[in-house]
Amino acid sequence: MHFETGLHQAAQAIGAGFARELDGWPDVPVVHAMAYALEGGKRLRGYLVIEGARLHDVDPDRALRAAMAIEAVHAYSLVHDDLPCMDDDDLRRGRPTVHRKWDEATAVLAGDALQTLGFELVSDPACHPDADVRADLTLTLARASGARGMVLGQALDMAAERADAPLDLAAITRLQADKTGALIRWAAEAGARLACADPAPLGTYAQALGLAFQIADDILDVEGDVDAMGKAVGKDADRGKATFVSLLGLDAARGRADALVTEACDALAVYGARAEPLRQAARFVISRRN
Amino acid sequence: MHFETGLHQAAQAIGAGFARELDGWPDVPVVHAMAYALEGGKRLRGYLVIEGARLHDVDPDRALRAAMAIEAVHAYSLVHDDLPCMDDDDLRRGRPTVHRKWDEATAVLAGDALQTLGFELVSDPACHPDADVRADLTLTLARASGARGMVLGQALDMAAERADAPLDLAAITRLQADKTGALIRWAAEAGARLACADPAPLGTYAQALGLAFQIADDILDVEGDVDAMGKAVGKDADRGKATFVSLLGLDAARGRADALVTEACDALAVYGARAEPLRQAARFVISRRN
Repeated sequence: MHFETGLHQAAQAIGAGFARELDGWPDVPVVHAMAYALEGGKRLRGYLVIEGARLHDVDPDRALRAAMAIEAVHAYSLVHDDLPCMDDDDLRRGRPTVHRKWDEATAVLAGDALQTLGFELVSDPACHPDADVRADLTLTLARASGARGMVLGQALDMAAERADAPLDLAAITRLQADKTGALIRWAAEAGARLACADPAPLGTYAQALGLAFQIADDILDVEGDVDAMGKAVGKDADRGKATFVSLLGLDAARGRADALVTEACDALAVYGARAEPLRQAARFVISRRN
Repeated sequence: MHFETGLHQAAQAIGAGFARELDGWPDVPVVHAMAYALEGGKRLRGYLVIEGARLHDVDPDRALRAAMAIEAVHAYSLVHDDLPCMDDDDLRRGRPTVHRKWDEATAVLAGDALQTLGFELVSDPACHPDADVRADLTLTLARASGARGMVLGQALDMAAERADAPLDLAAITRLQADKTGALIRWAAEAGARLACADPAPLGTYAQALGLAFQIADDILDVEGDVDAMGKAVGKDADRGKATFVSLLGLDAARGRADALVTEACDALAVYGARAEPLRQAARFVISRRN
């Protein structure tokens, strides 16, 4: 199956999964805000879970729970990242951010509960009958998203915005490995973990993919337009913030992203032709318009 | 061992446990803020884990991990609850709140990472060698703290403050069962879960204890002083908010708390004299000065 078909199907399955999951939850604004924050998005992280699981012949229903978990954690990070005290964004995925549509308190609580939902999904027996696998997914998800992973990256990013001197290439590479790379890696490795197989090849793939993804984001922040992105663009340059584009220049940034995609594809050699959709995914990441 | 000695020892062990746990973490403000938020407090939830585990002859090191987990989740909820967009408190445990000592963004991220730490602690093999137990603790912790548990209670509490009519007794009892009761119940039941024993008696104890705790909080909000409480008092009455005291009157609220303590103690009959410290804990909850 071609990557774009797979991504579309994954997005449909994940959206339907969340609708089923939240059915019957309390009819209160914080739950409505959670459902809203879980709508839309590319679902690239969830797709990586599902496709990695397919490579290991994992039951798709189990893969779906893990895919929903990483999308819930990703959604929590966006809701909190958009808050006035963080990035202060009004627009996300082409719609008002949660704190604009409801209020800040609801956004804080909805983000909190989305993180909790992520851990609930991977620790539920519906995710995998073997508790060792569930506990492994939970522990690795916690390590990837906490203050030695994603939250550390967000904190370093904030500190960099307030610092006098912009970051250098090594520092920004490290920052992005935490901020976006850790969750992308968890997503790519989850399929192997669900099959109790070696996650190393998918991990190497994801490390290169995650960095390529961030470089592509920086390029889009310069070249993209608001309509295609569904969020504000040009913010990094306006803030004088160091990005891969500001440090490398546009051409060298593109060249680095291309090289990372090749590196990501090479890491999948062990899977042969079956991994073609994941190779297409890597190419998509640097050619996307949003 | 008398309850107050046990509580003191639990607090020492939990504090030392967090110092060990965070040793070597990144030297950044968000991690400093996490450590700060984890300091102090009564550690009642952590004590309930440790004492419930002792009743079931669970290895104290394992109980300590689960005790730290519930204290991390409790600390996260306080850091976010204190934010300007939530309760807007400047003082917590007699010291500046995290967003006052650092800033709002650091408080949001530190709270986020404290929640993650809670799930990391219960899913780590150091908590229990049997993954079924770890996955069970994780799943029940997620259910107790998410949008069908603690976060739901926080959201309902916020909605009540903005509503025209104050809540009635049934609604406030339900709200508090979610807001504070769910985590207290998880704490009390964790010892039984660590021993793969029936958590029902400790659960019944905790339900009565949690409600008594909240009624005592409402009484302290009327009668307490800032120095003993380490936080602002009289805020509920100032806001015209319904509390157990405003709904029942001071005497009837005291009577209800007394009855709940008796109910909590009776639920421990199956444990005989060994549960005396937990009975003392229930009495402490309604006699405390902070």
